[in-house]
Amino acid sequence: MRISRIYLPTLREVPAEAEVISHKLMLRAGMIRKVASGIYTWLPLGLRVLRKVERIVREEMNAAGAQEVHLPMVQPAELWEESGRWEKYGPELLRLKDRRDREFCLGPTHEEVITDLVKGEIKSYRDLPLCLYQIQMKFRDEIRPRFGVMRAREFEMKDAYSFDADDPSAERTYHDMYEAYKRIFKRCGLNFQPVEAQTGQIGGAFSHEFMVIADTGEDTIAVCDKCGYAANVELAESRPEDPVGGDEDDKALEKVHTPGTHTVEQVSSFLKISPKRVAKTLIFDTPNGPKAAMVRGDRELNEEKLTACLDVAWAHLAEPMRIEQYTGGPMGFSGPVGINLPVYLDSELDGARNLVVGANEGDHHYINATPGVDFQVKQVADLRLVGEGDPCPRCATAMRVTKGIEVGHIFKLGTQYSEAMGALFLDKEGKEKPLVMGCYGIGTGRTAAAAIEQNNDENGIVWKPQIAPFHVYLMPINVNDEDSMAAADKLEKELEEKGLEVLMDDRDERAGVKFKDADLLGIPLRIVIGSKNLKQGKVEIKGRTEEKPRLADLEKAAALAREFIDAST
Amino acid sequence: MRISRIYLPTLREVPAEAEVISHKLMLRAGMIRKVASGIYTWLPLGLRVLRKVERIVREEMNAAGAQEVHLPMVQPAELWEESGRWEKYGPELLRLKDRRDREFCLGPTHEEVITDLVKGEIKSYRDLPLCLYQIQMKFRDEIRPRFGVMRAREFEMKDAYSFDADDPSAERTYHDMYEAYKRIFKRCGLNFQPVEAQTGQIGGAFSHEFMVIADTGEDTIAVCDKCGYAANVELAESRPEDPVGGDEDDKALEKVHTPGTHTVEQVSSFLKISPKRVAKTLIFDTPNGPKAAMVRGDRELNEEKLTACLDVAWAHLAEPMRIEQYTGGPMGFSGPVGINLPVYLDSELDGARNLVVGANEGDHHYINATPGVDFQVKQVADLRLVGEGDPCPRCATAMRVTKGIEVGHIFKLGTQYSEAMGALFLDKEGKEKPLVMGCYGIGTGRTAAAAIEQNNDENGIVWKPQIAPFHVYLMPINVNDEDSMAAADKLEKELEEKGLEVLMDDRDERAGVKFKDADLLGIPLRIVIGSKNLKQGKVEIKGRTEEKPRLADLEKAAALAREFIDAST
Repeated sequence: MRISRIYLPTLREVPAEAEVISHKLMLRAGMIRKVASGIYTWLPLGLRVLRKVERIVREEMNAAGAQEVHLPMVQPAELWEESGRWEKYGPELLRLKDRRDREFCLGPTHEEVITDLVKGEIKSYRDLPLCLYQIQMKFRDEIRPRFGVMRAREFEMKDAYSFDADDPSAERTYHDMYEAYKRIFKRCGLNFQPVEAQTGQIGGAFSHEFMVIADTGEDTIAVCDKCGYAANVELAESRPEDPVGGDEDDKALEKVHTPGTHTVEQVSSFLKISPKRVAKTLIFDTPNGPKAAMVRGDRELNEEKLTACLDVAWAHLAEPMRIEQYTGGPMGFSGPVGINLPVYLDSELDGARNLVVGANEGDHHYINATPGVDFQVKQVADLRLVGEGDPCPRCATAMRVTKGIEVGHIFKLGTQYSEAMGALFLDKEGKEKPLVMGCYGIGTGRTAAAAIEQNNDENGIVWKPQIAPFHVYLMPINVNDEDSMAAADKLEKELEEKGLEVLMDDRDERAGVKFKDADLLGIPLRIVIGSKNLKQGKVEIKGRTEEKPRLADLEKAAALAREFIDAST
Repeated sequence: MRISRIYLPTLREVPAEAEVISHKLMLRAGMIRKVASGIYTWLPLGLRVLRKVERIVREEMNAAGAQEVHLPMVQPAELWEESGRWEKYGPELLRLKDRRDREFCLGPTHEEVITDLVKGEIKSYRDLPLCLYQIQMKFRDEIRPRFGVMRAREFEMKDAYSFDADDPSAERTYHDMYEAYKRIFKRCGLNFQPVEAQTGQIGGAFSHEFMVIADTGEDTIAVCDKCGYAANVELAESRPEDPVGGDEDDKALEKVHTPGTHTVEQVSSFLKISPKRVAKTLIFDTPNGPKAAMVRGDRELNEEKLTACLDVAWAHLAEPMRIEQYTGGPMGFSGPVGINLPVYLDSELDGARNLVVGANEGDHHYINATPGVDFQVKQVADLRLVGEGDPCPRCATAMRVTKGIEVGHIFKLGTQYSEAMGALFLDKEGKEKPLVMGCYGIGTGRTAAAAIEQNNDENGIVWKPQIAPFHVYLMPINVNDEDSMAAADKLEKELEEKGLEVLMDDRDERAGVKFKDADLLGIPLRIVIGSKNLKQGKVEIKGRTEEKPRLADLEKAAALAREFIDAST
């Protein structure tokens, strides 16, 4: 492909709106353009990358026995009412009315449509298992669309839905998808990590996210390099340490004056005790009223875990005025003793004795507070946030905490949709049963963006050959030199005969401009044809991440390029 | 592909909702399913066909130098306000608001988005010509969605947009697209006809539709087999006959009593004159008030032509009460003499003399009415509907009138969008000029449906190999017979090695059921493996439209199949 024949409007300047590197580079490299907040056009170069991701996804889905379908984007409200999500799904579900005033939504996901599709057509266990997928645009009306196509409102997604006769079979399907996902992201050339994850709006029994490791990721994950445990910190666990004071006798509760001690550090240093001996009490507002939650002084509370434990849609730290109203004391001195709120205790504090807690009174704490003795506990639960170096819940090895970009998410749904919508089948005994479902998503556009987040430098994108828009950037320096152009044409053909995709920079531009664009676009291999070298039968070859080019025989260039691409794939 | 591994829910019964044969067969053959009015899911078999159409379209678009992009479905109102279509486009434009109450629409077409995209990025004539296309779902909120995917609300379309520096270049691009469209529909194996067409909501200077010839088509087209003239009857012309009475002297206008003569036939037989001598006067209501239109008694008036001539959005035949109010006389006796309405005269009546016209009085007509003498004419225009046998406007040969399904539509847009939206470039002289545009649509899903409308019989679909979901339907009669299955497996591999796509019916069903499904699905070639024939080393081969199967050597079956498919492509 000649650069003069491809619509490839590169930008010198970094667009002001772009916050993250992939967004900046995708705009600069002419891959995407913004149409409205969170709504993008894919230009030819971007679409080439997207199509390569799609192809890998499609091949692996087909290989895993899934079948491609195409479901509509505009979905009738009735289906969402059947599943109960018309009410439950928040404003991310874009609702609209047609000319006859009937209610519809733009599909953010397709559980309802697919369940309604198979309902009545899957009649027997003999029709199972079945796995259907599509690659299609979704719409989620994000409150804050950002990062380009990474968190867009209209975005492309591969979504698959599986139907099985029972749980063991559904779990086999889930496992097959898990393995297919690993192959997909490996084939895309990504450094990624599958992690245990929350189920959120989709629901279901359990789920895994596939994270592309990148410092700029929005998600934080905890990984044990020894046993392979990995989870989103939203639900990552750590092995609890022995309870503080667990082997002590209960001592008498005592209120002490602790002037100016607002933080755990201040309290522990004032009382000359370990921060582990202090127990933090945090007051939350929730849709079901205020709640108190406690974690050890050296830990952080994980709000997602608390929300899940309380089974509420949200839990926000209460405002200072509210705290006074609920506990009688100022913020920073909340404690569980004598308050009229249900207390949720982190499991690491279960069995702890003689703790230091706030006294719900300015500049005062209690010492020797023991759960179940000095205050009532509503529930013990895993509420603490996992941090760097915390012990793995399985093997106790210190875990590392890293940032990731969620590119895939798989869910074991169970029967929540099939039961709500009456998608039943007859089992071997002729008994009617609800289909056991799973669903499996990949953000294809986001995968392309994540690849850039993971692989770039100060000059631009660094593509892996697997999803690069082209393999070779072929650059005749002087396009007015007939010999150079003849050599370029010939080499282009040779490269293409070797199955390589070539972008030939045939623009009559300064070499500096062309070199800059070559780096910006991030094509894995660059071949430069200069008149001087050409007279010696040589061209310059340079991998995108190599420091310096090397001279190669023009005649061997195509073979060398093929070798280079194979070696970097 | 084994039929047991593909989600292919065929139906025995004809679904009540389906009016046309393609809709019935697509539902019965498990190609599509309805989700809501005009909104469909494509199942695996249907999607295979759609993908084949897409591939042909994509290859021909790329070969014509167009580049693929992907534009969003959700489009901001501002762009449509810039072009002026936010107001003009009717309720087919589905409008919606996002969570921040900003207005958007679902794209029924993408002129605005693409013009906004290139605006500011195409700066110079050197960047031209440019042609961008996409294959993507559109939404048009049809008042009466019907015929399955043929007139759906959410439907897949290839839409291309071209940008040129001047009219001659734009016309070359238009011509290239015209030729690419011919190749596309030819490669799809369709009997089709390009016709001159109206521009409608899209606008522009001129346009062509590509019609698949089928009795069930919604469009009517006039075709001259001699010179190749072809047009949608909405605007088809015919060569006018010499004006009636053109060589006579004007005679004196005279009112005559014509009791009970409501129709042209009654008048002409009562007065013993040719119906050509009678001139029909039709009264229309329009947004600009009532108008009178006249055509010869043996012609029909073409309402689309009248609407275009009046430059109004609609023109409806006036109700009887209104006619009395406007003309003073009852319906059936309207005439141009003495009425207070502007009169539009069909060009065939231009120069006619001594006509018979209604007298705006029950049971009375005027004879010897001459336009310009006995009544004023506001405008002479081509207003008559072309019918079977009318003379071609170019070569006067009798034309035939046939039905068609519009599968493609190309428009020479000119500068209407680029001027309204300020999409300018600098020409060779450094002068700012608006881009000259064209746009080019193909209904990919509708093309698949039209292929079925054109090719089917009482037993089901008859696919041409080019877009058939599979080439060969391979049917072992007894799937419990090991020899049959071994032969089927081997033959499947041989067929696939020859590049043929095989659907193997491995279901343990009665042969009758399998034969019926084979016909319903319409796969071009059927190969049946029966135990008895197999013992002689024979299989049965039958083309979908052949009356009877023939016996063939199992060993030669794959080669014969390849020959058959090549011959029918």
